[in-house]
Amino acid sequence: MCIKSIILAGGSGTRLWPLSRELYPKQFLKIKDRSLFQDTMERCLQVSDISEIYVVTNEVHKYFAIGQVEELGYDMPPENLLLEPEGRNTLPAICYGMKEIDKAHGRSVVGVFSSDHVLDPIAMETISGAEKLASEYLVTFGIVPSFPHTGYGYIKPGEELDIGNRVLEFREKPCQEDAERYIAEGCLWNSGMFLLDTEVFLKEVRELAPDVWDAFDDSGDVNEIYSKMPNISIDYGIMEKSSRVSVVRLGCKWSDLGNFEAFYVESEKDKTNNCSPSCENIFVDSSNNFVHSSTNKLVSLIDINDMIVVDTSDALMICPRKSSEKVKEVVSLLRERNDERINIHETVYRPWGSYTLLENSAGHKIKNISVLPGKKLSLQLHHYRSEHWVVVRGMACVENDGQHFFLRQGESTFIKAGSKHRLSNPGKLALEIIEVQLGEYVEEDDIVRFDDEYGRA
Amino acid sequence: MCIKSIILAGGSGTRLWPLSRELYPKQFLKIKDRSLFQDTMERCLQVSDISEIYVVTNEVHKYFAIGQVEELGYDMPPENLLLEPEGRNTLPAICYGMKEIDKAHGRSVVGVFSSDHVLDPIAMETISGAEKLASEYLVTFGIVPSFPHTGYGYIKPGEELDIGNRVLEFREKPCQEDAERYIAEGCLWNSGMFLLDTEVFLKEVRELAPDVWDAFDDSGDVNEIYSKMPNISIDYGIMEKSSRVSVVRLGCKWSDLGNFEAFYVESEKDKTNNCSPSCENIFVDSSNNFVHSSTNKLVSLIDINDMIVVDTSDALMICPRKSSEKVKEVVSLLRERNDERINIHETVYRPWGSYTLLENSAGHKIKNISVLPGKKLSLQLHHYRSEHWVVVRGMACVENDGQHFFLRQGESTFIKAGSKHRLSNPGKLALEIIEVQLGEYVEEDDIVRFDDEYGRA
Repeated sequence: MCIKSIILAGGSGTRLWPLSRELYPKQFLKIKDRSLFQDTMERCLQVSDISEIYVVTNEVHKYFAIGQVEELGYDMPPENLLLEPEGRNTLPAICYGMKEIDKAHGRSVVGVFSSDHVLDPIAMETISGAEKLASEYLVTFGIVPSFPHTGYGYIKPGEELDIGNRVLEFREKPCQEDAERYIAEGCLWNSGMFLLDTEVFLKEVRELAPDVWDAFDDSGDVNEIYSKMPNISIDYGIMEKSSRVSVVRLGCKWSDLGNFEAFYVESEKDKTNNCSPSCENIFVDSSNNFVHSSTNKLVSLIDINDMIVVDTSDALMICPRKSSEKVKEVVSLLRERNDERINIHETVYRPWGSYTLLENSAGHKIKNISVLPGKKLSLQLHHYRSEHWVVVRGMACVENDGQHFFLRQGESTFIKAGSKHRLSNPGKLALEIIEVQLGEYVEEDDIVRFDDEYGRA
Repeated sequence: MCIKSIILAGGSGTRLWPLSRELYPKQFLKIKDRSLFQDTMERCLQVSDISEIYVVTNEVHKYFAIGQVEELGYDMPPENLLLEPEGRNTLPAICYGMKEIDKAHGRSVVGVFSSDHVLDPIAMETISGAEKLASEYLVTFGIVPSFPHTGYGYIKPGEELDIGNRVLEFREKPCQEDAERYIAEGCLWNSGMFLLDTEVFLKEVRELAPDVWDAFDDSGDVNEIYSKMPNISIDYGIMEKSSRVSVVRLGCKWSDLGNFEAFYVESEKDKTNNCSPSCENIFVDSSNNFVHSSTNKLVSLIDINDMIVVDTSDALMICPRKSSEKVKEVVSLLRERNDERINIHETVYRPWGSYTLLENSAGHKIKNISVLPGKKLSLQLHHYRSEHWVVVRGMACVENDGQHFFLRQGESTFIKAGSKHRLSNPGKLALEIIEVQLGEYVEEDDIVRFDDEYGRA
């Protein structure tokens, strides 16, 4: 294919709390049938082979990335998944990807994409079409603004080139007045996407961000590299300093989905302009609302307009659409309180599948555990809790204190506290079990792992 | 004690939906530690012995009444619980109670109370103090209005008596303007409470509502009696027609809690005038809100004012406080759809305790079942589903296909589809079990009852 791709998938924002959480960030959320990460992957496959797409993420989120690529039916080479030991903003992440691509494929032109933006797939033609420009310039992409958005950065185009323009100036998120002026001056929204030639880009990094360049020593040990890495964005570290930056206009739909208002704008609406996940939900004299809820829950709004209502099993958030940005105030309050609900969802994704907490009481916890076909949990032991397992769907293979046996739908077993045990799904269908945990202490950290396919032992 | 009491507890309103449901009505709801029915019972005990208090309700709600009286620690004679085969408004219910009291105690003065109103207990002194007046008059109680409420009926006092006044006129719920005028004219809110002498009252019924009187034939069979009973309120059937009606002023706090706005007014609020069940809930620039939610759920409001937010596990309702009355529009929409959520709560109360639905999927259902000490479920059988029981608290006695055995905390058993089984709590503490139901059909009506302590076999 024509270009290589880097997908940045390490973000862990909470601007969509309580929907997104630190451990279940926006790019992996499935609001509809596919996540934004999966959409991004599909777009990249228009211009790159699967072996030419590199995903930069981290340990915490890697199984989302692996699982969601598998789910799409693609076989991404394991070495294309790049794991940062810790987030250091966009410049180190992009450098990491560019150097790996340079090593594996030689000099290449690389599209760099956020994994949590909405973009019309038609944009990929324009992006890959700028390949020639990338041999001389660092290419940014500017979106033709549809209104004076105060949440985006702006790019002021200068001298015209064969394709696109030189960049005259980058401008930070403006106030309303400035945003209006920028648009009048012909500025574009900074989309955060780039087309970069490995040679041109790495040369600029060496010159303009030597601390980042130097961090990539010859050890090849990513932990060591990141221990010396500064925290710096590509905009601040390179784009605003380089004299070789150009911008190409994209006239299509794009959004960074930075808050629920943006989600509302991008979502399908009914004829009263309500956006709701279920046609069961009731709107009495209510319009222009964004509702997110589980389909088992009936939401009814009476005389409510221009509101965001986000209901999850453990948290409910309500605000006017115009106050979407203030969600962060709730999140920082929760952070002060050390409330786990900013990190963890009631459904927790693991490399082998997921579990959902159904009840959490003093002395017992009930979980619905879903194990993907062919997957295996670790061989483990709990000191304080016993577990009852009832298979409600599929077939389980159980190891308990050295004994191995199968459980079919409707069958159950008991795991005593202190027994070494392991659950796996030997079948071709999903396995679902109900687990009743009992004990004086039923927290997640009462676990000793002996053997694990995912290196967690 | 000085007077007898009748508590009307058969109502099944849904004006507080989704909190109240047909099968879990307002009077039995526990918003705080006690229900409104229990508050009413305690007030009646100021003026009547437990053996002098009669509760009129129906089959569907009788175990709420029995259970909640037991819970208060009182031993109400079973014959004091009067069950109407169907609701026929207040006049038949009051007549039923008055006739039973007349039979059991002879001529008596009886206070008649709604079970779902808020009333300052001090009012009981004034009410029982009107005993003498009741020997000549049907005594109503009028609340000194604090504002021109359009949701209440009004009473216009006339000629002064030793205590209270003759009633000049009853007035239906007015518009705002009329309400203001009524207050200027000295009208009082009609509280719906009465003090009635059995002899005086029954004579008026015979004369003014002969169809009600005649329905009470000598058969003594309440089903037969109610099959002929007209649907009629005491106000319309007696009070508005009788020339022997008096009214006594009550200067204390009273509310019929007719909608969520009334609930908000009566509830304790924090310093930003939010009413919230949990101090965990977050209010960012939000005030004057009524929030009802479970304490496991975190509710956060941002820039929200004067709003009602009612969250239950299966339904969420949001409306401005001033739109409280429109809840009925949602309820009637659900009625058209035959949505069970107007009838049933996720927690369902049974004579032996309660159960809460934790998960409801095609092919399986998970319940947390709580059995009160000493209580026993029916001996039963399911054709289509098997059940796994895990005891998480207390001790269970299980009968399964003729075998009897005990299960202690952490122990479990399996009930095959088709087995006759029975669960009971032989202990002194609550029994809590997790039940996993599995089968092609897991609805409540797959049950055959063989023996039941509550007459449901």
